[in-house]
Amino acid sequence: MKKHLLLIVFPLLFTSSIFAQDKDSIMFRTIANEILLHGKCYSYLDYLCNKIGGRLTGSPQAAAAVEYTYQLMESIGADTVFKQECMVPHWVRGEKEKAIVLTTLSGDYPVNICALGRSVATPPGGITAKVVEVHSFEELRKIGKLGVEGKIVFFNQPFDETEIQTFAAYGKAVFQRHSGPSMAAKYGAVGAIVRSMANALDDFPHTGAMEYVDSFPKVPCCAISTIGAELLSKQLKNDPGTRFHFEMSCQTLPDEKSYNVVGEIRGTEHPDEYITIGGHLDSWDLAQGAHDDGAGIVQTLEVMRTFKALGIKPKRTIRFVMFMNEENGTRGAMKYAELVKKNHENQIAAIESDAGGFSPRGFGLGGSTEKKNKILAWKNLFLPYGVYDFLGSEGGTDISPLKDLGAFQLGLEPDSQRYFDYHHTAADTFDKVNKRELELGAASVAMMTYMLSEYGL
Amino acid sequence: MKKHLLLIVFPLLFTSSIFAQDKDSIMFRTIANEILLHGKCYSYLDYLCNKIGGRLTGSPQAAAAVEYTYQLMESIGADTVFKQECMVPHWVRGEKEKAIVLTTLSGDYPVNICALGRSVATPPGGITAKVVEVHSFEELRKIGKLGVEGKIVFFNQPFDETEIQTFAAYGKAVFQRHSGPSMAAKYGAVGAIVRSMANALDDFPHTGAMEYVDSFPKVPCCAISTIGAELLSKQLKNDPGTRFHFEMSCQTLPDEKSYNVVGEIRGTEHPDEYITIGGHLDSWDLAQGAHDDGAGIVQTLEVMRTFKALGIKPKRTIRFVMFMNEENGTRGAMKYAELVKKNHENQIAAIESDAGGFSPRGFGLGGSTEKKNKILAWKNLFLPYGVYDFLGSEGGTDISPLKDLGAFQLGLEPDSQRYFDYHHTAADTFDKVNKRELELGAASVAMMTYMLSEYGL
Repeated sequence: MKKHLLLIVFPLLFTSSIFAQDKDSIMFRTIANEILLHGKCYSYLDYLCNKIGGRLTGSPQAAAAVEYTYQLMESIGADTVFKQECMVPHWVRGEKEKAIVLTTLSGDYPVNICALGRSVATPPGGITAKVVEVHSFEELRKIGKLGVEGKIVFFNQPFDETEIQTFAAYGKAVFQRHSGPSMAAKYGAVGAIVRSMANALDDFPHTGAMEYVDSFPKVPCCAISTIGAELLSKQLKNDPGTRFHFEMSCQTLPDEKSYNVVGEIRGTEHPDEYITIGGHLDSWDLAQGAHDDGAGIVQTLEVMRTFKALGIKPKRTIRFVMFMNEENGTRGAMKYAELVKKNHENQIAAIESDAGGFSPRGFGLGGSTEKKNKILAWKNLFLPYGVYDFLGSEGGTDISPLKDLGAFQLGLEPDSQRYFDYHHTAADTFDKVNKRELELGAASVAMMTYMLSEYGL
Repeated sequence: MKKHLLLIVFPLLFTSSIFAQDKDSIMFRTIANEILLHGKCYSYLDYLCNKIGGRLTGSPQAAAAVEYTYQLMESIGADTVFKQECMVPHWVRGEKEKAIVLTTLSGDYPVNICALGRSVATPPGGITAKVVEVHSFEELRKIGKLGVEGKIVFFNQPFDETEIQTFAAYGKAVFQRHSGPSMAAKYGAVGAIVRSMANALDDFPHTGAMEYVDSFPKVPCCAISTIGAELLSKQLKNDPGTRFHFEMSCQTLPDEKSYNVVGEIRGTEHPDEYITIGGHLDSWDLAQGAHDDGAGIVQTLEVMRTFKALGIKPKRTIRFVMFMNEENGTRGAMKYAELVKKNHENQIAAIESDAGGFSPRGFGLGGSTEKKNKILAWKNLFLPYGVYDFLGSEGGTDISPLKDLGAFQLGLEPDSQRYFDYHHTAADTFDKVNKRELELGAASVAMMTYMLSEYGL
């Protein structure tokens, strides 16, 4: 009898699972069609980039972006829209930076630089010193105080081009930008130059956050373009007496009041289970922050618009979050997590889109194997949309404080090849974003959000 | 005993297959590293685009490209390099085309057009006529001679944006460009306008081949940009008396002598089994033919360079072919197949790269299920390089005449989202190609070529 029972129950289970997959597959198609035919994210991004512009934390543009997305979520028809106040760092770049390579053998020439975020300024009139080139902290340690004191340290470790995912190359090189200046200061350097975090050889300097260690003097630090870095390196080999002069007037002003912007569609069956999806509203100041992270912001808004347009009533509550200050402080992310904890919210999962508005390829999955496997069972549903790669484990900076609060981490993974052509540079502009690629990314996040809200974890 | 024998043989088979996969996986990594660190395809493309330019069949630039790639294959060190003479069509665009929308209610305004390839010219001074807009041949048939005679037919069926692969949308819309003019003439039209084959709304008219049917008059036909098409359509709704004026001076000159350029690396074990890989050397004239198909050409050259640089001695013979005249005649492809047949060559497989220099995603596989399955067994080797999709069946226009001669068809499938932003327009320039994306495509073709040459089919 038992055997017969199994024979009856198994096909039923199988049928019901097939039925659910069919239903979900139809929903995926409906979501994709809605976004590809009636999507608004591209025009939202146009506004954010061309009408508001770069949204450095503390800037008037960041404030304008808060108002814009608040009003947009209201007009899309979120059940609730609210702001979460947080105090944010207020670093400003000041005048356009200047740098000159002073040779002993040939003529002097200017190079393209920009201050790294959070750097101190040079003294008025700038800094001029000899340059010592290194490729690792180990190399710096070996050269030591004797070789470094009074000089400018030039961190020139390029991206590892053999990494297929460019984020892996970034991960291996970014120590120079993040901790290089203080490491240089530890050995008595008067300043630091960092090779831009990029694959391409071009003349865009890439800014980005660095962090001073309190125990060492704060020395000014700039990024040099990859072409500039190659030139300087060659120059130093030919002419070791070469000096570098640079002037920067950036400064850190007192903290400012700012906000995360949060919209909500309440769940119909499990309103106390939350799924947070989002990107970051702030950007660097050199351009429009189109890929980083205007794309993530407008994709999040597109998911909300799509749920409303299609009349999808999620079983679980979806939180749409425009995080403030990812680039130089993550204060918004910390504030959001603080309130989640305070309010004892059951955040079951969080999705971040902060890797550019390119063709989607997959999702990073961070959390227990059991939950991973639940999501991997949905894999075939995503495949027709070019989303096949679930091997990564990265969620995103803004949602990472939610990990310890129980939220499974998901990160949208678009094609990464072009990302570091634009990242943190003057080239990160609206025209670099393809409408359909942006929309397909939004569709992928909408599909994943739908599955999480429908089935939980 | 038999059972025991199986127990012994099976693990051995298993081990040897694992061993082969390991060896191949190391070779894949070696190929990728070589191309990502020392690749030359990007600089080849720079030359082809910026030093030679658009390579319309019969043009001096097409001839220059023949010489350039011939010399390049010699300098890379092919065992043999030779040209295959073929007579090719010689269509020329003439003066920049002009078009004006003549309204009855408001002012007249110019719109951006270009002649379709192989179109006849307008009479001197142009054609001016009322316009009838259609979206299918069925609609045209219903309107019939009474509604069409003496008018210009405007084919305005847009791309189906719900197709995830843009080539599928192209496949559904391209009938208008290819056969529209003769269908219009069948009902007495004096000319035709075709909406550009594109996803994006922009102001680039897209040229491309059309074909006249001998039984109908040859009427001049132009492509209008997608923005122009939307404008014209709106105009016709508001003001049905609107007329369209256009002037084109294109003409078809007598056939010219041209060439395929073919390089060979002879196989060490099965020299009489051939694997053909290639792209097409000609392009349209409006720009540099960077994605279409400079990319395919330089990737083919990169595969040759990589085999030589790494000292890979293929077991089977590899033919590297720069096909002439894919765009408006495929005479090169026909010549190549003719010679394959004449020389009784055993062409086991052919790979074409003619879908742009974007991030690779897969290969179309066309041929028997048995051979497909053999290739699918290699799938996991490709996955770390983002190449996961083997569901398509398209090879490519240039290799398709080899199908009947027994060659299994493979087509490199890059990400398709941006392709029709550039395809056959003035925007198909070198700066639209990303170095790493181009290189990863070359690496994928090199890996597939390696597997085919190593294991056959």
